[in-house]
Amino acid sequence: MTKYITYEQAGVSIEAGDRMAHQIRSAVTGTFGPRVMDLPGGFAGMFRLDYDEKLFKRNFQSPVLVACTDGVGSKVQLAARIKKFDTVGIDLVAMSVNDMLVQGAEPLFFLDYIAVNTLCPESIAEMVKGIAKGCRLADCALIGGETAEMPDTYKKGDFDMAGFAVGVVERKKIITGKTVRPGDVILGMASSGLHSNGYTLARNICFKKASLKMTDKPSQLRGATVGETLLEPTRIYVRPIVRLLSKYKVKQVVHAMAHITGGGLEGNLRRLLSKGQRLAIDWSAWEWPPIFQVIQQAGNVETDDMRRTFNLGIGWVLIVDRDGLAPLETYLQEHQEPYKLLGEVR
Amino acid sequence: MTKYITYEQAGVSIEAGDRMAHQIRSAVTGTFGPRVMDLPGGFAGMFRLDYDEKLFKRNFQSPVLVACTDGVGSKVQLAARIKKFDTVGIDLVAMSVNDMLVQGAEPLFFLDYIAVNTLCPESIAEMVKGIAKGCRLADCALIGGETAEMPDTYKKGDFDMAGFAVGVVERKKIITGKTVRPGDVILGMASSGLHSNGYTLARNICFKKASLKMTDKPSQLRGATVGETLLEPTRIYVRPIVRLLSKYKVKQVVHAMAHITGGGLEGNLRRLLSKGQRLAIDWSAWEWPPIFQVIQQAGNVETDDMRRTFNLGIGWVLIVDRDGLAPLETYLQEHQEPYKLLGEVR
Repeated sequence: MTKYITYEQAGVSIEAGDRMAHQIRSAVTGTFGPRVMDLPGGFAGMFRLDYDEKLFKRNFQSPVLVACTDGVGSKVQLAARIKKFDTVGIDLVAMSVNDMLVQGAEPLFFLDYIAVNTLCPESIAEMVKGIAKGCRLADCALIGGETAEMPDTYKKGDFDMAGFAVGVVERKKIITGKTVRPGDVILGMASSGLHSNGYTLARNICFKKASLKMTDKPSQLRGATVGETLLEPTRIYVRPIVRLLSKYKVKQVVHAMAHITGGGLEGNLRRLLSKGQRLAIDWSAWEWPPIFQVIQQAGNVETDDMRRTFNLGIGWVLIVDRDGLAPLETYLQEHQEPYKLLGEVR
Repeated sequence: MTKYITYEQAGVSIEAGDRMAHQIRSAVTGTFGPRVMDLPGGFAGMFRLDYDEKLFKRNFQSPVLVACTDGVGSKVQLAARIKKFDTVGIDLVAMSVNDMLVQGAEPLFFLDYIAVNTLCPESIAEMVKGIAKGCRLADCALIGGETAEMPDTYKKGDFDMAGFAVGVVERKKIITGKTVRPGDVILGMASSGLHSNGYTLARNICFKKASLKMTDKPSQLRGATVGETLLEPTRIYVRPIVRLLSKYKVKQVVHAMAHITGGGLEGNLRRLLSKGQRLAIDWSAWEWPPIFQVIQQAGNVETDDMRRTFNLGIGWVLIVDRDGLAPLETYLQEHQEPYKLLGEVR
């Protein structure tokens, strides 16, 4: 974690740098479980694999490491514009950990790369606090990070972020999607908003075409501003999905899962199908959250384009064996996890 | 690896996209060892830990995962300026794997994040080929990557890269630097050039202050251009160091190591010392490579500032127990690995 603590080098006063370094450090160490080996002054993050622990041995006879990387796309532009830096970190974690979850892996640790025009300790601290919050929500440790000051690459006030997550899955339990078959049911779980996709279009429509302001409150948003609604962090599905998958020790009920990102529902589900299979989606099975209605109306966007660009309220999909559906529904209801039946594989 | 293959979405012709995707894919799969589980259509990179293999069990009773992330700083600006995209990928791998090597870890796999103004399949393919080459030099697998098109964040022609490496070290063999003691010898291994640090200053001096052109050939560079000398990829120390460390099964001869990055020799060694210890560096022990002489003369830079900013020809340092020095020197000579004795810990 040392690399966060280099503010003095950037000409920041040592006192301010120290204060921020302390804030950042406590946010970061708040994500550490007993498996993190803290090595002050080290160049790298270290994570014990519990190779010698009985519990680990029971769950993982043949552990496979799963790794993902992602950014948050042009959502960072939105954050930079209203100088709200504490939520995009949650998005950053969400994008990578949700991707690994698709294969049935549970996150172990995370690292971030933040690049800025000028190092401002306050904003970096906000960003790292967001990332640390995301890591806590994903039950993973934030074991490393790099902050780069690149005035010639990034415009004043601008920044970018990249995240990297590593997790583990037992080899036999990797969800590959190979078992998807006709008759399987498509079950969707709610998104929290746009998540981290479609922001180039959304920003274009809201702020250029419709000349909305970040502080505007269109009636459909019921009191919320456009800015805060668009910056709503991506939902992290780790806890409900890891818990759900741990139910199935033997039976394969969940044939495939998808994190609904760019490309929308169909774009992300289609890659799970084999030749000859197709999706039958009942688009009337759920209502679009208000922000998507605002965007469609403001931009006069075709419904097909909306479906190809946004998650439209469904952020996670399970493709489920029809025989296992009833107990799975009961389980979701018991755990107060809202879901919708969206259609089936044909 | 699926994420590389999304060029059609960026409006690139399907044919050109396919051709590039094929090129990229063969560069990437060229880094795969038998432990990579290739999952076409998957969202994540998968790497078997050989948990059940005898060899792995013998070497790793208590494996610790080590993770690093880094970018290449403003060296990307230089690459963008002369549109040479096939070497910064080697730098990207080098920066992360050299950092993990400091703790005694050997790299297992790597992921990259590339962000651009506009997706140009040809340049992305060059970048990924460079990254794949770096991974081969570091004996690790390139198991994932993300390419982001962000026209509002990056200027036309500009890009940024972040890399992420995961490796493994046996718990008892982690090199922490705690055993460094007075009398230890400081041994340096050559850098290949500036590596990936000091480029803001170097670019400023060469191209603004001294108005050099990338194609200029100052006499000191003996026929090489300024551009190609500055873009020389960072040396990857994985092979000689992993081989060297494997020699020491029991004895602790190497007390600490350092990857000489921003802050120069002293800046990177000082963090390894305990209270009361200090470095006695013999600055006359080696000659600066020509490019550093060019920079100092062109910019009229104080020698102290040169030492604080650049590696000055020493890219890797071993801090070695004096009793173990003679056999270690013999070993390095036998393996034709040039080194310099730079001083000692007092």
